[in-house]
Parts: sequence; C-alpha cells; structure tokens
Amino acid sequence: MQKTIKFYSKPSIIATSTVVGPKEGEGPIGKYFERIVFDDTFGEKTFEKAECKMLSTAIEQSIKNAELGVDEIDALLSGDLLNQIVSSSFAARSFEIPYIGVYNACSTMTEAFALGAMMIDGGYFDNVVAATGSHFSTAERQYRYPLELGCVRPPQSQWTVTGAGSAVISSKRKGNFPHITHATFGIVSDFGVKDANNMGAAMATAAASTIQTHLENLGVKPNYYDLIVTGDLGALGSRLLKDVLKERGVNIDKNHVDCGELIYNIDEAEYQGGSGAGCSASVFNSYIYGKLIKRQIKRVLFVATGALLSTVTTQQGESIPSIAHAVGIENEEN
Amino acid sequence: MQKTIKFYSKPSIIATSTVVGPKEGEGPIGKYFERIVFDDTFGEKTFEKAECKMLSTAIEQSIKNAELGVDEIDALLSGDLLNQIVSSSFAARSFEIPYIGVYNACSTMTEAFALGAMMIDGGYFDNVVAATGSHFSTAERQYRYPLELGCVRPPQSQWTVTGAGSAVISSKRKGNFPHITHATFGIVSDFGVKDANNMGAAMATAAASTIQTHLENLGVKPNYYDLIVTGDLGALGSRLLKDVLKERGVNIDKNHVDCGELIYNIDEAEYQGGSGAGCSASVFNSYIYGKLIKRQIKRVLFVATGALLSTVTTQQGESIPSIAHAVGIENEEN
Repeated sequence: MQKTIKFYSKPSIIATSTVVGPKEGEGPIGKYFERIVFDDTFGEKTFEKAECKMLSTAIEQSIKNAELGVDEIDALLSGDLLNQIVSSSFAARSFEIPYIGVYNACSTMTEAFALGAMMIDGGYFDNVVAATGSHFSTAERQYRYPLELGCVRPPQSQWTVTGAGSAVISSKRKGNFPHITHATFGIVSDFGVKDANNMGAAMATAAASTIQTHLENLGVKPNYYDLIVTGDLGALGSRLLKDVLKERGVNIDKNHVDCGELIYNIDEAEYQGGSGAGCSASVFNSYIYGKLIKRQIKRVLFVATGALLSTVTTQQGESIPSIAHAVGIENEEN
Repeated sequence: MQKTIKFYSKPSIIATSTVVGPKEGEGPIGKYFERIVFDDTFGEKTFEKAECKMLSTAIEQSIKNAELGVDEIDALLSGDLLNQIVSSSFAARSFEIPYIGVYNACSTMTEAFALGAMMIDGGYFDNVVAATGSHFSTAERQYRYPLELGCVRPPQSQWTVTGAGSAVISSKRKGNFPHITHATFGIVSDFGVKDANNMGAAMATAAASTIQTHLENLGVKPNYYDLIVTGDLGALGSRLLKDVLKERGVNIDKNHVDCGELIYNIDEAEYQGGSGAGCSASVFNSYIYGKLIKRQIKRVLFVATGALLSTVTTQQGESIPSIAHAVGIENEEN
C-alpha cells in the first residue's frame, strides 16, 4: 500500500519562476508567466540548447526571486524529457549547486517537489530548487518526427509545451508562503495503451490511482482541495480521469483542472492541449502558485503525470507505463 | 559550499542482490555475484528487454534476501542509462511499489543510496530499494555504434558492464548490517573533455572534488576509510583521480579501488576497465558489501561517478559534464 507522507515542518515554496515560448505566452494564461521568450530558439543555435537555457534561466530567476544567493541553495532537483536529461545536467553545470537528477517524464515536477520537501522537512537542507522544462521542437525531433517532414498530427495528440518552471523550497519562512503538506509517490500503471500520440489516455489511470490513494490516506473528500491540478492529461485524458474516478465513487468534476487544458487556446493544432514536463512546471509555478500566494485558493492537490515510454520501447511493441506523483500544497491563514 | 548529510538513525543496507552477464561472471570477482547469466539476452528478444529483466530480477531477489514482501517496500529508487530510463520504469511496472526515477548516469547508485537513506532516516519510510543496471549491448547501440559494424575501440575506452545491482535500505535492523552514515551530493564539473570514449578522464575531477569535500566536511583524513571505492573511472581515470587529489594534498593511494578496475581481467578489449551504471552497482552490492558484512572492512566511502552526456550533446560539440555522489557506509562493532 502506498504511504502518504506528511510534512510537519511546513516546507515552503518561497519563490518560483517561469520562462515560456511565444505560443504559450499568447495562450489564455500568458500574462501569468514571468518571462515570455519571443523567439523559441532563445538566441541559441539549437532547440536543445534553447531548452537548456530556458531551464537555467528559470532556475536562476527563482533563486533571485527568493532573495537568496546561489551559494545558499543546498541542492538542485531537476530532470527533463531529453535523453539522459541533458537539459537539466547542462543547466546544473552553470551553478555551483549539488545536483540530483530526477526523471519520471512529465511527473518530474511533483517528484522533485516531494523529494525537495523531504530534504527540507527532514532537516537535511535549508533551501533546495526543484525545476523542469520541455521544448516542443526538441520533443518532436526526439520522440516523433523532424519538424521539417511536416507530419500531420492525429486528433488525440497533444502539444509539447516550450517552457520551464522552477521553485525554491525552503525551511526559512519570512512570510506566509504556500507549503507542501503531503506527498504520495505513484505506482507505475499500465493499461495497455500503445499509441504514443495518446498519452493522456495512458496517464489518466495513473492519475486516478494516485489521487484516490492520496484522498483515502488523508481521509478527506475531493472537496478538501480547492483545486486538484493534474499535469498534462489534456482534454481527452481529463475526461477519462473524471470518468474513472466517478466509477470508483470519487467525483472531482467541480474542482479539477488540467495544466494541459489551461495553457492553450485549444484549436486544431494542439488538439487535446499541452503536454511535456514544462507544461505542469510552467502552469503551476505561475498561475496556480499566484492564486495560492494571493489566497484565492488555499489548498491544492498537484498531480503531475508521466508517460514512461521511449522511442525504443514503442518500436519494440511495448505499451506505455504511466505514473503520477501527488503533492498537497496549502496556504492557510495562520 | 556542499553540505555533507549525517544520518543519525543508521539506515541499514539489510540485503543486496546482483545479476551479471557471462563476461562479468568470468572476471576476477565473478564468484561474488549472486547470479551469473550465461546468455546475455537472458532469454529475451532484445538486449533492452534483457537489461530490464536483469534489473527487475536483482530488485526482486534483494527483497527476498531481505526476507520482506514486496508490499513492505515503500519506494523503489531506480535509474539507468537507456533513454528515458526505460529499464527502470519497465522494471518498476512489475512491482506494486511507488517508483521514484533517478538519473545521474553512472553515479545513479550512490544518488539512490543517498536519497534512500534520507527517506529512512527522515522517518518517512521503513524500507526502500535502490537499484540500477546497464548492458554492454544496449549502451553500444545507443551511445556508440551498432555491434554489427565491428568498430575498433580506442585504447582509452571502457567496457560497459552487463549487470544490475539492488539494495534494500531499512530502518528495521534485525542484526548488524552496514549502514549509511553520511552523504555528499556532487556538483557538476566540466574540464572540457570532449572525447566520449574517455569518460574516466571526464569523471576523475568530479570524483576528486566530492571526495575532498566529503573528507573536509567530516574533518577526517583519507585513512578514516578502509576503502574509498569509485564507480567506474577505469585504470586511466583512477590514475588521474589519485594525481589530482595528491596535488591537493589528499593521498588515497593506499585505500582506493575502482569498480571498473576490479570487475574485468583487463586485456585489450576492455582497455581501461568497466563502466556503466551497472558497474558500481554490481561490484558494490556483491564484493564490497560482502566485505562489509564480514567486517573485513568497516568503513567504506562509496563514490559512484557519472558522465552526463548524450549523443545529441556530443554531436552538438559539447564537452562532458560529470558528477560524483559520495555515501559513507560503515559496519562498526556495537
């Protein structure tokens, strides 16, 4: 049985930063991102280097926003979708911070939040950074087809977010900040979905299981949370999630939002909405975090979801195992 | 400044398991491995599936060796060298255990040990598994050339270990087991090495920095440890490590061993010795762990080293950033 960890010391998210591409900046929550890059190469020669620069820019800015020096950060928890998480490793190279590479595909943001909260709550570290990102053009090149081929996208597909998000988790609260109260690490689930263009469906059951376990372990109803925020299920995956949970007697219709549905004005090109590790990272660390800071919402269950495939596993006929890690984040009045 | 974490509660490594290929089984420490597979496909259709099966076999056996049920394991920390760490993710699919994907290339074993020790010492979990592995044929295919091409290997190259290692870290000691006393997470270093066939050189400086910081933070001399065990620097990298440390006034000549040097009868094909995440994982969790259990040695500093490259970064002209995480493991008389 999965355990849900309770953090008694209120590890706080004292600052965040987000950097996104032009398409994300033009979307419905564009005004909430800290920085919008109007050229998705970000002045670099390759999209891979641009992805890395977005991530390192978000990391650097989040540390500045926390009014901390880089030398006050005890660890950087980061991962991304590129092979060997090189965006994170090369971003880490620019900081003199101990680096802990993490990877659970698009659930990396909540994985990093949960591990970071442990490091703070356990008394091991004072300040850690949790960050991730993705880039549409690097993901297309690596996972699907070169953009130059001009392949037509199927209607169940999602659009990988070009963007990065970073957050500073700290034991030192100088004010009232949202803090991480609980974490539930997910178990890998696999319901046999083999369509790499339909990851929302693959991930929906993983999200359903983790959300249900988390609520049961806390002994609360879904309405305990003002928002249950999934990572990047997209429109189709979100519908599946709600249907699956309803069958199990858990109704999240009223308080569920999905970062993949929030980030774009969904029209033909994006079909089901945003995806990628940068999707939940950029949406949570801007729009959702802002609502928590202003206490427009006070309790959020943040459930980033990951599809654990590679091109090799798909080519070898494997289905797509999925995972979802949940973190409870609250900002109650004292 | 890097912090060194001290674990007061003695998170113990209560069991391990290793599975290796035929070449590793024939090497100088072959008799210490728990299981030697005499066909490196392990009965699977592809080398990737074989790598995954070796890893899941080691995980399963380590849990059995700990006399625990799978349902008593609170988390599985695992990562590997394949794109999107799919060996770990697909191995995790076979267990109903919350899964936390980690990746720092060949330093993944000590990264997982350090995070696992935190989870136990912080009181969050009772039993966690830390595991990783690699496979010569999947690594060659992914990072270098298809085996069928028959490319000649340069003399500075190493041989990726076909093998996996798994360890159970627990808060529940029923006897005297080696326990994790300290952890120092590494900072990424990059001295401009661009030769992907010479990773020992790239990683040597990372190992030197982490070892030096760890010893300084503890206020001890190198001889505090009976053995300082690096991951997979190989013969050339080990010589570089010792030279670099000597220049800084730290002499580890007498108590340093490298898993990459231990695992093979080094002749022409392997040149500098073993490498890969499975190298330190299989050597530590068999030969070194056995010595600790028997108290032939009582204090080990285990420093797995990772080269954080991908084929894309190499193709784009990047140098090879490296990292090393250190964990102190001791088994003193009570």
